[in-house]
Amino acid sequence: MSNTEGTSPPRGAIPRDTIFVGIKPVMAYATAVMMSFAPGVNELTLKARGNAISRAVDVAEVVDRRFFSGKLAKKITIGTEVLGEGGDQRNVSTIEIKLQRPPQ
Amino acid sequence: MSNTEGTSPPRGAIPRDTIFVGIKPVMAYATAVMMSFAPGVNELTLKARGNAISRAVDVAEVVDRRFFSGKLAKKITIGTEVLGEGGDQRNVSTIEIKLQRPPQ
Repeated sequence: MSNTEGTSPPRGAIPRDTIFVGIKPVMAYATAVMMSFAPGVNELTLKARGNAISRAVDVAEVVDRRFFSGKLAKKITIGTEVLGEGGDQRNVSTIEIKLQRPPQ
Repeated sequence: MSNTEGTSPPRGAIPRDTIFVGIKPVMAYATAVMMSFAPGVNELTLKARGNAISRAVDVAEVVDRRFFSGKLAKKITIGTEVLGEGGDQRNVSTIEIKLQRPPQ
């Protein structure tokens, strides 16, 4: 609900098959996705929160249309994260877009 | 991909069970959703494009958490729409969030 962009990953280890979408241009993330789709990697997850959610959708759409002719499977879930502590708590929406490569 | 907000619905009739999310505050759309969930109406669809996509996710999350204790089923699809004509064509991402009321 707040406008906080999801620039920094949450605490803990970042899984190798996850790409956090923040304030960089769409093509930066699209390139990261294509680099991560190494041989044997068939599934990747885009994560974003706040205003960056729209950009994560852009990334998924660009990758799907430009490199997979619209054949990428996309499984989407949304949620809410509580940011801040004490009196400064606020809710921010999140999105997870699981991209699954079509069988070759 | 462009930053066009989805303020105006596409051409043609607007289905009664569809709410277009644009630039109004989140609570305006959340209220519209609750008003539309009349008796007998168990399914509604939120639609948005461009930057308004993040707001549509906010609306779904606010309604789900505040009025349905997180029990609303949400089915999400994303896509791309071509806006403009001739040399002014551009792609804009879209989202559709189908909200399904839990059985009472």
